[in-house]
Amino acid sequence: MAQDNYKGILAIHGGAGNIQRQNISPEKQKEYITKLTEALQAGYDTLQNGASSTDAIVTTIMVLENSRLFNAGKGSVFTNDETNEMDASIMDGDTKSAGAVAGIKTIKKPITAAQAVKDHSEHVMLSGDGADLFGKEQGLEIEESAYFADSNRLKHLIKLKAKEKSELDHDADDRGELPVDYDINDDKYGTVGAVALDRKGNVAAGTSTGGMTNKRWGRIGDSPIIGAGTYADNETCAISSTGHGEYFIRHVAAYRVAMLMELKKYSLDKAANEVVHKTLLSDGGRGGMVGIDRKGNISMPFNSPGMFRVYVTKKGEIKVFLFGDEK
Amino acid sequence: MAQDNYKGILAIHGGAGNIQRQNISPEKQKEYITKLTEALQAGYDTLQNGASSTDAIVTTIMVLENSRLFNAGKGSVFTNDETNEMDASIMDGDTKSAGAVAGIKTIKKPITAAQAVKDHSEHVMLSGDGADLFGKEQGLEIEESAYFADSNRLKHLIKLKAKEKSELDHDADDRGELPVDYDINDDKYGTVGAVALDRKGNVAAGTSTGGMTNKRWGRIGDSPIIGAGTYADNETCAISSTGHGEYFIRHVAAYRVAMLMELKKYSLDKAANEVVHKTLLSDGGRGGMVGIDRKGNISMPFNSPGMFRVYVTKKGEIKVFLFGDEK
Repeated sequence: MAQDNYKGILAIHGGAGNIQRQNISPEKQKEYITKLTEALQAGYDTLQNGASSTDAIVTTIMVLENSRLFNAGKGSVFTNDETNEMDASIMDGDTKSAGAVAGIKTIKKPITAAQAVKDHSEHVMLSGDGADLFGKEQGLEIEESAYFADSNRLKHLIKLKAKEKSELDHDADDRGELPVDYDINDDKYGTVGAVALDRKGNVAAGTSTGGMTNKRWGRIGDSPIIGAGTYADNETCAISSTGHGEYFIRHVAAYRVAMLMELKKYSLDKAANEVVHKTLLSDGGRGGMVGIDRKGNISMPFNSPGMFRVYVTKKGEIKVFLFGDEK
Repeated sequence: MAQDNYKGILAIHGGAGNIQRQNISPEKQKEYITKLTEALQAGYDTLQNGASSTDAIVTTIMVLENSRLFNAGKGSVFTNDETNEMDASIMDGDTKSAGAVAGIKTIKKPITAAQAVKDHSEHVMLSGDGADLFGKEQGLEIEESAYFADSNRLKHLIKLKAKEKSELDHDADDRGELPVDYDINDDKYGTVGAVALDRKGNVAAGTSTGGMTNKRWGRIGDSPIIGAGTYADNETCAISSTGHGEYFIRHVAAYRVAMLMELKKYSLDKAANEVVHKTLLSDGGRGGMVGIDRKGNISMPFNSPGMFRVYVTKKGEIKVFLFGDEK
């Protein structure tokens, strides 16, 4: 695609995992499609009105963070301690400035905390209570723990803890042994993210997650790690990852896509597919990513059965897909 | 260098920054040289006895963590809250397994916590109190906060706080306006790290730090970030970074060296020099790194006035350098 007369373009993911038709009822599918479309539309509208790609990403991700359907913000899964601890990051492909938070518990919209770190601190990454305090000092919306606590997610945690096993070695989701309306965000792949290109030709990426159900010891996944869960550079691409975070960290997945483009002159799609289908799968890393380049090309590869994904074409058409057999 | 009859090779850094002759008395220089040599010798001895590169790195870094001379473990600088919060990471170039901890307060030797995460958890990165708990559960040595509290470092913090400015905008160190025996580890570049190649031909890297004096909000720098502060892959190299962490994170500095080697076929030295002298300096990122490849080549570039660095030649000679005019 050539860089022509558009005012902005956007793609989002709502998590990858064992997303198959038989596991999600038609009603639930409709709920996901409606909310994903709403999120994309919100970000797209701001781009049409001249917003920067970073602002569009924050607008989009906030819609998902405000929904119980996704494992981020209000819908975050529970830790082993029965708390909700959230991670988020954002990167601006124009300036390469970046912000991230890990293990926050009180900030209503974690992506706004990542943005505040980027814009109002000299740091890239803040963590724990200190990051919550920073967000509060920045005037971000704060919520009590009850706001983030969803009774269904708590039930899932309690069931998991009863089994005395962590979600990480809970392999049922990989074998398709799940009931209909199994909550796909309770598996280890739930995360939301967005990539955007604005009318000035700047790309950006952002990612937000509640992490892994039953996580303990202050585990940090790839979502708040620049280079793994999020990366953006106008010269190459903007990427937001979703999947089994440990693999994305060790393979520096988002940045590897950018490097294949910069150093090997791969297209975005070739680079993203290589990382998802070869690099990550080389040792069993499951998940996917959304990417965008400065020409408005979009790539959305995943190696799990499905990935919630939405994008808008240059003509303004919104395309929503949930399963692996759609495109 | 060809891969010949050696039993192991090792290089370490003890931090980069405004390390100039006029700022460090001859007595203090001797102290640094003695301790750096001791650390290298300890790791080198284990390699000669057949230890893996990861074990040699842990052995080496523990010596530096147990000294008040370096900003890691016992010598860690103070946060704004007058606590000592430490970060560390390690990566094995053979399996590409990795472990990291961020913001720990009680584990005597933080590099052992990173190693435990790598070897005994399904995660890559743990943080805060949870990471301390994990270390305790793993039977690692625990210390009270008094163990980490150095009176001189506390004085430095109090002075800084009185000025109500963070070390990050304390530019005196860049202008050479420092008294003799100014504590170089109180500046923003203090960190220790090591890279090693063992007799099996496996490389590894590890990094440990107390972070930045007067850091707040749970700030995490590059040291515990795989791809930024630490990276290792037998196919390319092992890297440990030291410097102004935010730049190393945004430029994914350690992994970028590996990518220039893998995708552009650069030598280790060419790749490391490009990242330190071009990529990082492109927006003012100061610091350096040590790297090793599978052939036993070592590279130790830095763009600050000095960097504490030590390595052992294949003949077993130990070389120690502190300043920019030595090699």
